[in-house]
Amino acid sequence: MATHKLLLLPGDGIGIEVMAEVKRVIDWLDRRGLACFAIEEDLVGGAAYDSCGQPISEEAMAKAFAADAILLGAVGGTKWTHVHYESRPEAGLLRLRKDLQLFANLRPAVCYPALADASSLKRELVEGLDVLIVRELTGGVYFGEPKTITDLSDGQKRAVDTQVYESYEIERIARVAFELARTRRNKVVSTEKHNVMKTGLLWKQVVSEVHGANYEDVELEHQLADSCGMQLVRAPKQFDVIVTDNLFGDILSDVAAMLTGSLGMLPSASLGGTEEVSGRRRALYEPVHGAAPDIAGKGVANPIAMIGSLAMALRYSFGELDAADRIEAAIAGVLAGGFRTADIYSEGKTRVGTSGMGDAILAEL
Amino acid sequence: MATHKLLLLPGDGIGIEVMAEVKRVIDWLDRRGLACFAIEEDLVGGAAYDSCGQPISEEAMAKAFAADAILLGAVGGTKWTHVHYESRPEAGLLRLRKDLQLFANLRPAVCYPALADASSLKRELVEGLDVLIVRELTGGVYFGEPKTITDLSDGQKRAVDTQVYESYEIERIARVAFELARTRRNKVVSTEKHNVMKTGLLWKQVVSEVHGANYEDVELEHQLADSCGMQLVRAPKQFDVIVTDNLFGDILSDVAAMLTGSLGMLPSASLGGTEEVSGRRRALYEPVHGAAPDIAGKGVANPIAMIGSLAMALRYSFGELDAADRIEAAIAGVLAGGFRTADIYSEGKTRVGTSGMGDAILAEL
Ligand SMILES: CC(C)[C@H](C(=O)O)[C@@H](O)C(=O)O
Ligand SMILES: CC(C)[C@H](C(=O)O)[C@@H](O)C(=O)O
Repeated sequence: MATHKLLLLPGDGIGIEVMAEVKRVIDWLDRRGLACFAIEEDLVGGAAYDSCGQPISEEAMAKAFAADAILLGAVGGTKWTHVHYESRPEAGLLRLRKDLQLFANLRPAVCYPALADASSLKRELVEGLDVLIVRELTGGVYFGEPKTITDLSDGQKRAVDTQVYESYEIERIARVAFELARTRRNKVVSTEKHNVMKTGLLWKQVVSEVHGANYEDVELEHQLADSCGMQLVRAPKQFDVIVTDNLFGDILSDVAAMLTGSLGMLPSASLGGTEEVSGRRRALYEPVHGAAPDIAGKGVANPIAMIGSLAMALRYSFGELDAADRIEAAIAGVLAGGFRTADIYSEGKTRVGTSGMGDAILAEL
Repeated sequence: MATHKLLLLPGDGIGIEVMAEVKRVIDWLDRRGLACFAIEEDLVGGAAYDSCGQPISEEAMAKAFAADAILLGAVGGTKWTHVHYESRPEAGLLRLRKDLQLFANLRPAVCYPALADASSLKRELVEGLDVLIVRELTGGVYFGEPKTITDLSDGQKRAVDTQVYESYEIERIARVAFELARTRRNKVVSTEKHNVMKTGLLWKQVVSEVHGANYEDVELEHQLADSCGMQLVRAPKQFDVIVTDNLFGDILSDVAAMLTGSLGMLPSASLGGTEEVSGRRRALYEPVHGAAPDIAGKGVANPIAMIGSLAMALRYSFGELDAADRIEAAIAGVLAGGFRTADIYSEGKTRVGTSGMGDAILAEL
């Protein structure tokens, strides 16, 4: 049986708590002989800063390069508000994304039927919702230079960020979106602001070209990012796959996730290209939710998105479909059994904490 | 009685139809001697491009500078997709904003009780909703340079947009937000992405400084733009005033408007600074909705946001509070009377078209 090199980066806030539950699931898979892991663990984000003054150490980066897949909890928190920009917790995550070239961020927004009432939208608008946001993750305003704050006269300052996209960056993410759409409902909405941004203009052109060259069987629609935000709120079920840039993807995927009422349930994947020699595809899996400093340390966070991220890794990086199926079935089982953490609690259900949910999932397994 | 110089720019798509209804209301005010106008009218957007090859003519710009206030319908449409970037319809609106220095865009998202069921959100989450988005309108990525597409080798291209903010731009919009909050529920949420953008970092610092110096009586909270998008969907009533940059404001104000279920009902104002000599404040009023090419020319568009924009102009630019009150009362009256355009129609109500709604409002007046 193949040994999978898995790097765990719990990070900050509730990342630490939810990762603890994943470890129990990993142990269970190991003990049962269902999958075999070589586990490494390290720090990222504020936790890494506190320990070594950097949001990710060189040693952790080396482990990341050596791993077959990475599971990340979450980074950030008010504790590090005054840390220098270059060393802030988020810089650790951004470095992982950039250095490993994880350009394709897949963020599914799925509404679990058992949780449809937890959505702020009317049930009929979200029941059965299954949107996949394909967000470009290594370009755009997150990484473009110049990115500076300079002092002017009179104590005035001037801040600059730069959004840059080259054709090849748009081409490769468009291909990912079209390929995924083919495995789903065959429809892609591409989103930008071509009416005010040159990067939006290039985005729209390149996506159209990729479509025309190889994917005419997939339905393609262009929507402005502001309209897309509106349409997500108005009628989210019109969407199958949405492909967009790094910044719009950040906001729209959070809006889409919140629509489902299942935020604490949603895993995500960040994928690189396939490497020529090894045929391996670098990958990082993490929950869509953040570090949630307000509830961190209280043992109330929902570990399902994190455990679901492990299932995603098993499926997409390790080809362990059986183990992935089992975990996903166990998650569905505990929900059907009425177990709920605080974020998804509704009357008449059994309220559990983070480790209580872990217990329930292990019992179900 | 003072004569108010009002410039009408219907623009494109449904802008033309809804402006026609406003003209009837203006005539009515004139005939009754309730307010006295000197009306100019001109083209903007695609309509201007078709007529003179530019999205706004120099003559129209001169009228805009001479006017006490501008009413604008909407710009844009698929017809002009292939027009050169510099001449696209939106460039006309952007030039108005920039040249008149209309830096403060006030976008109220109000849920009309009679229309709460038109929202995709559960009634209890939006009933009574009243959020004001204060969007910076003359800076950021909309106007920063460089803004280019260049050819690289191999047919590859590279597109660049630049987001620039200087302290004074953030200071003045922050003051607008705090002042407005004092007339409302005294709470401001400032939104940016300081965790990835230098402009976000400066934004947060400057807003905090303005707050500390003069507005400590107003409650201030900072939210990341992605979180803010989530919170708008989850629990919009937590917000009073949201202050944010040009691009985030574009998306978040559309999301907020759509939450209300009253998109066709929402006017907005874009204000400049107060001029030293005249004491006048330049202002442009327009509906939050766009040109909606899909329903243009069918006579089904809702004219209420456009008529409400006139009421806003009467109130804020002309000090004609009585006339403004009457119009707003008439709008409330026709809604209470059950008149609905298609966008807000629900069973048992009286469905009317654009001019039918205009008739109803005039009858109510
Ligand atoms: C933590 C932060 C840098 C990150 C981002 O903005 O990309 C997060 O919001 C996300 O969406 O993964
Ligand atoms: C028409 C377009 C340029 C404009 C913008 O992006 O600002 C519109 O979406 C708006 O919000 O007023």
